[in-house]
Amino acid sequence: MKLVEELGERKIIDIILGCLDPMPNMPVLFGDDVSAVDLGRGRLAVIKTDMLVGKTDVPPGMSLWHAARKAVVMNISDLAAKGVKPTAILASIGVPRGLTDKDIEQIGKGLNEGAREYGAYVLGGDTNETSDLVISCTAFGVCERRYLMRRSGARPGDLVAVTGLFGKTSSGLKILLEDFPVPQKIGKELVNAVLKPRARLKEGLVLAQTRAVTASIDSSDGLAWSLHEISRASNVGFLLDQLPVAQEAKEFAKIHNLDPVELSLYGGEEYELLVTVKPRLWEEAEEALKRVEASLIKIGVVTKEKALTLRMREKALPIETRGWEHFKTARLEK
Amino acid sequence: MKLVEELGERKIIDIILGCLDPMPNMPVLFGDDVSAVDLGRGRLAVIKTDMLVGKTDVPPGMSLWHAARKAVVMNISDLAAKGVKPTAILASIGVPRGLTDKDIEQIGKGLNEGAREYGAYVLGGDTNETSDLVISCTAFGVCERRYLMRRSGARPGDLVAVTGLFGKTSSGLKILLEDFPVPQKIGKELVNAVLKPRARLKEGLVLAQTRAVTASIDSSDGLAWSLHEISRASNVGFLLDQLPVAQEAKEFAKIHNLDPVELSLYGGEEYELLVTVKPRLWEEAEEALKRVEASLIKIGVVTKEKALTLRMREKALPIETRGWEHFKTARLEK
Repeated sequence: MKLVEELGERKIIDIILGCLDPMPNMPVLFGDDVSAVDLGRGRLAVIKTDMLVGKTDVPPGMSLWHAARKAVVMNISDLAAKGVKPTAILASIGVPRGLTDKDIEQIGKGLNEGAREYGAYVLGGDTNETSDLVISCTAFGVCERRYLMRRSGARPGDLVAVTGLFGKTSSGLKILLEDFPVPQKIGKELVNAVLKPRARLKEGLVLAQTRAVTASIDSSDGLAWSLHEISRASNVGFLLDQLPVAQEAKEFAKIHNLDPVELSLYGGEEYELLVTVKPRLWEEAEEALKRVEASLIKIGVVTKEKALTLRMREKALPIETRGWEHFKTARLEK
Repeated sequence: MKLVEELGERKIIDIILGCLDPMPNMPVLFGDDVSAVDLGRGRLAVIKTDMLVGKTDVPPGMSLWHAARKAVVMNISDLAAKGVKPTAILASIGVPRGLTDKDIEQIGKGLNEGAREYGAYVLGGDTNETSDLVISCTAFGVCERRYLMRRSGARPGDLVAVTGLFGKTSSGLKILLEDFPVPQKIGKELVNAVLKPRARLKEGLVLAQTRAVTASIDSSDGLAWSLHEISRASNVGFLLDQLPVAQEAKEFAKIHNLDPVELSLYGGEEYELLVTVKPRLWEEAEEALKRVEASLIKIGVVTKEKALTLRMREKALPIETRGWEHFKTARLEK
């Protein structure tokens, strides 16, 4: 017998999956970011549930409003990565004793804000008494099956791209959790990346319409982890030739003598999309994002060889399988 | 400012609902047992989320397998009450440190059992680290809008009915929580009612097809509470002339000098359906349930006057607004 704290989150999930009878003709396989049910006529009902827990997911400085909003946004981000528009949010809330009516109001307003920012509505839920704050949200949307972006379609030669810059949330977490000092002019942006994450919904919806994307995931467990997830699901490797680091993260890294690559690859709680794109449709995808005032940043190429490598200034760095894992005290290897 | 433990669950829910923008043309209003999204062509996507918390919902003697199964069944029960067949279950699990791989397996098997018993499949979820055991399930199904049974359609003159006998779970909880002694021959049945509750799915599905039902709810917060919920949603009252108490509960009450009416009205964690039925379609509804080897027990009539009364042996007892409420230490009045 092994304790859960020795097993880690991925192993726990594997044990549970091993107990489940798989639904025949499941439209989305176990292990992808969302689940789906066939609605007929080429449509899918897409559902995602993910829980925010106060003691592990809410750093000091994050209000209940921020926490509730984030609990919604992290679920919407998974729908965004699949190219699915969220229509409904449900929230099951565990409230610790000692909170007040004003706190509950902050939670309610945060939930509503998280949904309305993305055009969805909170339709229901329930409340319970718990020791920790727990906000378990479910996001629901409907999509056409042919537009759904999975983790598993990346092919050698496809281009690898992301929807934004990395490193801000890991810098922000160091400020909030480890009291790293920071000049005000970059501190606000870095902390805000943690407190008020954005789901890349319009990007995901537009990318799905182009049919240019062969695999897609959000980077909520860190960019390196997301690369490994697509590698595993698609049975491919990656050769990256650049890493788009946010200017504020570069400055933060310089001040504290940190490695900006480390901050960008092995962070987490970042909600950029990581996609692989058919080369012949690259320009179309890039143009489509420009039309919604967003951008697609090419960072490398999909390889047949399963290795994950970042080549920078003549050096080839292996991209490790590290990221945030619940139950394990630190970021550990798989 | 008021603490949540002074507010109680219903007031907390009201505060949150007050923060939410309502979706235009919501197919099911806030406060019903499920939420729904219009899928077009007369169909609805129906979703329910409800959280099981170890410290408040898992009595001594309930294994992790039972707890996980129950977390699924309590959500399926809400779909059953609306006449909706569940197709998919998602489970978001909060696991305390100290559990083992064997415990996780019990949770996985319990989730699978709860879904498969009712023809549904567990499609996904996530795990987190929490102080309490938390199993937050979401049940999903699709139905035709015209068959959905709501809380709000009861009309004066409709007949009131339930799908089974009451009092077993409150007796079982007294055995498990308060160590009430009990003869083995009835003890097993009473305890089992708590450990392995059944959702009345086939009953709900068949009743929905008859179009005889004007309002429906499950009795998970106790029969009295459910009567009050329909009373509030439909703006009607009830005059009951009988209360179907399970034989085992009668015996248990006799042994301990308890009131079987109290056990049956103010229990909870009971998953019988409470429905109101158009008088002219009563026989049709009764027959439909017989065909699936279930029964519909008439207990009274819907009244225009909003009072809730139980008339037994010439005495008229008011049915109080009591039931289980989280955050409040005991069963309190609204």
